[in-house]
Amino acid sequence: MANPTAAMLVIGDEILSGRTKDKNVGFLAERLTEAAVDLKEVRIVSDDHAEIVAAVRALSARWDHVFTSGGIGPTHDDITADAIADAFDTPIDVREDARALMAMHYDRNGVEMNAARLRMARIPDGADLIDNPVSIAPGFTLRNVHVMAGVPAVFQAMVVSVVPTIKGGQPVISRTLRANRPEGEIAEPLGLVASQHPEVAIGSYPFILNGKFGSNLVFRCADEAALDRAVTAFQTAFPEAVEQ
Amino acid sequence: MANPTAAMLVIGDEILSGRTKDKNVGFLAERLTEAAVDLKEVRIVSDDHAEIVAAVRALSARWDHVFTSGGIGPTHDDITADAIADAFDTPIDVREDARALMAMHYDRNGVEMNAARLRMARIPDGADLIDNPVSIAPGFTLRNVHVMAGVPAVFQAMVVSVVPTIKGGQPVISRTLRANRPEGEIAEPLGLVASQHPEVAIGSYPFILNGKFGSNLVFRCADEAALDRAVTAFQTAFPEAVEQ
Repeated sequence: MANPTAAMLVIGDEILSGRTKDKNVGFLAERLTEAAVDLKEVRIVSDDHAEIVAAVRALSARWDHVFTSGGIGPTHDDITADAIADAFDTPIDVREDARALMAMHYDRNGVEMNAARLRMARIPDGADLIDNPVSIAPGFTLRNVHVMAGVPAVFQAMVVSVVPTIKGGQPVISRTLRANRPEGEIAEPLGLVASQHPEVAIGSYPFILNGKFGSNLVFRCADEAALDRAVTAFQTAFPEAVEQ
Repeated sequence: MANPTAAMLVIGDEILSGRTKDKNVGFLAERLTEAAVDLKEVRIVSDDHAEIVAAVRALSARWDHVFTSGGIGPTHDDITADAIADAFDTPIDVREDARALMAMHYDRNGVEMNAARLRMARIPDGADLIDNPVSIAPGFTLRNVHVMAGVPAVFQAMVVSVVPTIKGGQPVISRTLRANRPEGEIAEPLGLVASQHPEVAIGSYPFILNGKFGSNLVFRCADEAALDRAVTAFQTAFPEAVEQ
């Protein structure tokens, strides 16, 4: 059976302007790969209501899960929760359990629960809260969309609590060979191995090290015996390729 | 007049699996911001012909420019050039000037021009070549789509040669204030400043430093006087916010 699929939607003008470098895509990608969920698409859109609504609708209709990052804080440019609600024509309002969680945390820390912070307790009807051990204001899951914060420490904590609740597929095993040769020298035999082992996904990823091109060859398959056969076939052609 | 718009399309299973962390989005985003071109959307898709074709069509129809990264090497999984050609129903074949460039470079370096390397000279009809000073095999521009390599050193060299050929808009000036306070404490006055200065785009970007939340407030506007008015209005409310 095929693995469940996922997409990620990053909401962030600051990423599109280059001011902030995204760290969340790579983190989520690693966790999903471990959980045997196939991340199929990522989109980064601006802090714009219509853009977020359109992207959420497109991605949630197509893939099994959607993970969003960013735009759920207390400031005027935090518009994600409302956009998610609109994407599913769902009402949104302050939710008592979310408000209570935050009020308790703020009380303990001598922080004021003001109107801006109260916005973070606005949750679309029917959503499940996502735990935020870092700064308490929760994320939420509405249908197949998991809505999380953009600050990497908070995003990561939320991902760690959400991903284990998702039913993964069959873990893919991967083996990586490193050839200190440019792709141009290995492309033909590699293509032959790929065509003779269609059940194994083979990717070639060039790198530059000390001014010289080399290639990392990643073999991926759920069936270990098939994987070994493809790796062996390539190593027969290129005995100097070293397993990483 | 509004700035020209752009999108980026990253083609890469290795990014979606988390194996490789993307560095190209941030680099392109910075160069476009400097050139007063607004990056509006980024998509990352898998090494799949139909996915690439669909994304190129959607993005090129919507935005003034599209920049792609990845999938133009010599191996079997390098399918971007053919997908771009198909996206515009354009024939593609080995192009003599691209082949000659590569042959000369390979000759000089004692490298064999084999069938795999020759694939990198396949260029859709009517495209302009993009210079690749790092490893010579060129990128290309077809209509409004700029097709570049995924290896960061090569991608960066190609971006540096393409972006100056694009007519930018009016550079946006930005000023950043840093407040060592969580967003929840500044959200209300900041929202007021934002609503009173609609011509200034104000973003709030939380961070965690030494376990404490702080906020970077980025004010952006093409009109310096308007920008100064908004910054001054916020500094009046929060005199301890420090310009970065």
